[in-house]
Amino acid sequence: MPVTVSRKQQMDLIVEVLRGLGANEEEATIQADVWTEADLRGIHSHGVQRLPVMATRIQKGLLKVNVKPERTWSTESVLNVDGKDGFGTAISETSLRELTPATRKHGVGILTVRNAAHIGMVGYYAERRALEGLICLAFTTTEVLVHPFGGAEALVGTNPIAVGIPGDGRPFLLDMATSVSAMGRIIAFKHRGQKIPEGWAVDKDGSPTTDPDAALKGSLSPAGGPKGYGLGIMIAMLGGLLVGMPAGREVLGTLDTEFRCTVGSLFIVIDPKAFPGGDTLAAGVKKYLDELRGSRPGTGFTQVMAPSDPEYKLRDERLVSGIPHPEEVWHAAEQLRNNISK
Amino acid sequence: MPVTVSRKQQMDLIVEVLRGLGANEEEATIQADVWTEADLRGIHSHGVQRLPVMATRIQKGLLKVNVKPERTWSTESVLNVDGKDGFGTAISETSLRELTPATRKHGVGILTVRNAAHIGMVGYYAERRALEGLICLAFTTTEVLVHPFGGAEALVGTNPIAVGIPGDGRPFLLDMATSVSAMGRIIAFKHRGQKIPEGWAVDKDGSPTTDPDAALKGSLSPAGGPKGYGLGIMIAMLGGLLVGMPAGREVLGTLDTEFRCTVGSLFIVIDPKAFPGGDTLAAGVKKYLDELRGSRPGTGFTQVMAPSDPEYKLRDERLVSGIPHPEEVWHAAEQLRNNISK
Repeated sequence: MPVTVSRKQQMDLIVEVLRGLGANEEEATIQADVWTEADLRGIHSHGVQRLPVMATRIQKGLLKVNVKPERTWSTESVLNVDGKDGFGTAISETSLRELTPATRKHGVGILTVRNAAHIGMVGYYAERRALEGLICLAFTTTEVLVHPFGGAEALVGTNPIAVGIPGDGRPFLLDMATSVSAMGRIIAFKHRGQKIPEGWAVDKDGSPTTDPDAALKGSLSPAGGPKGYGLGIMIAMLGGLLVGMPAGREVLGTLDTEFRCTVGSLFIVIDPKAFPGGDTLAAGVKKYLDELRGSRPGTGFTQVMAPSDPEYKLRDERLVSGIPHPEEVWHAAEQLRNNISK
Repeated sequence: MPVTVSRKQQMDLIVEVLRGLGANEEEATIQADVWTEADLRGIHSHGVQRLPVMATRIQKGLLKVNVKPERTWSTESVLNVDGKDGFGTAISETSLRELTPATRKHGVGILTVRNAAHIGMVGYYAERRALEGLICLAFTTTEVLVHPFGGAEALVGTNPIAVGIPGDGRPFLLDMATSVSAMGRIIAFKHRGQKIPEGWAVDKDGSPTTDPDAALKGSLSPAGGPKGYGLGIMIAMLGGLLVGMPAGREVLGTLDTEFRCTVGSLFIVIDPKAFPGGDTLAAGVKKYLDELRGSRPGTGFTQVMAPSDPEYKLRDERLVSGIPHPEEVWHAAEQLRNNISK
């Protein structure tokens, strides 16, 4: 029996729990917003269901509340932030806001964030910059779950990339992992007793499998074979190594309650005004996306969509009708509130 | 009966033809180098086989030799270049060299190139920056050949991305189209009388096909479905619209001999020294790539490779044993020389 809650109910509950655990108002609010935006779009793997793990991480001192990140400008255009094990979400968003004047002055600015907790849905930051009229490319690392193209061992993260570009009406928003699928979706197939589609995963010996149990003991396949593999490695290097954080197996601390978080994130922010097509970009983006949407669908499809169209549609609906959660997810969050207020 | 030529023989022939057509020494040499690097790596679609089309384009005034591009700095970090219909290769490479001091000063610099001919294998520029100790992300647009995810019409270019990152020994080099395959490879299957693999293309009605003839009348499929599609659109916007050039169907002039070239290119160049992991980046890149290479291969594979490993291996071999070309490709180039020297 799912529980349906409003955006405000969810925000309030998360803020109350995190405040109760010592988070300040700003970090609690941004963390709540990042999770709630994910749930509004149907990306529940990155929503409030992560609250219990975060609460445990805070209680164990793996995530530190109310810390002051160390912000260092290496040049006028590059801001490097040491998060001191604080909230990755709040540190990323507030640092991006601090980067904006530099981006507008120089046409481009880069932010790196290290030693901070999981930044959540990476599209969140790219979308916000696009809504401010800026372009944002965001890369972040994750635990290894993906095998190399032609390989049998999980050595690459699902390492997502997000890109936001201003567009009339809505921005262009791309937010994608570099694997075909996510572990969460394979678990969902298992729970429904279904086989997973071909090409999603390999078993522990590196053989393609459609058995979710074998896939869970094996690893995820990179999207587009060598292409997703190449992009995944690139993100490990740009979001990880360049940022002063590890690549590969040493990335830990987003899904577990045992390790410090060792993800890294890199954001490239661009001001269209510094470019020849800057003034007409937003109109051109809308025109091109509308041309794609209006084009002839292929066999088995009824409508061509632009990236994030399904997520925006769901968000519009859920802002009105609420966000459905499995009962246990919502009750776990409520339980945390009850424990804290005791 | 293939003809095998040395790197120097090929460089000399191309330079002689282009010089004969009025190109200056610098633009002829860079163009020859870009094509020859592609042929050395087995990427013949981007090699000397393009010389006859370029010669015709020069003779028809679609590609202008010996022009002075207009270089405008919009900020200290952003260089926008109007190529005045000149050589995209030479203009991109020389402008990137001009960008380097700004990149080193600010930690990041961006170059855009518009109104210039096809820039060739986009990895060329990314690799050179990586060899100079810089990171480079390069995007360029192409003619539409790819259907949207769920669509039936070619509305997206194969829009490639290249990324070079310094690594001890060899750099990390990713150079990939955002489609599963290339039209050239489908033509090769047709010539051999073979079916193309599933997932490469759709027919004119948007149904998946393994018939190369149907594919040639249809369109290429994006790599990884919605992911390659999203990346392809992103590149249309960053490499095209932002640069002041079109996205989609109006991109012309790289394969034909009728239209001005309307591709656009954007290069983001980053100096690792401005970042926390900059000093250890090259060593970390090598270590991670070696870990991937040394990992257990999956079923059907004997070795895990890093991106560009096969191309580098072939290049090493061909620098010694020469570059094989179909007789007609090499003879067409020689014929151009003979015609010009008359």
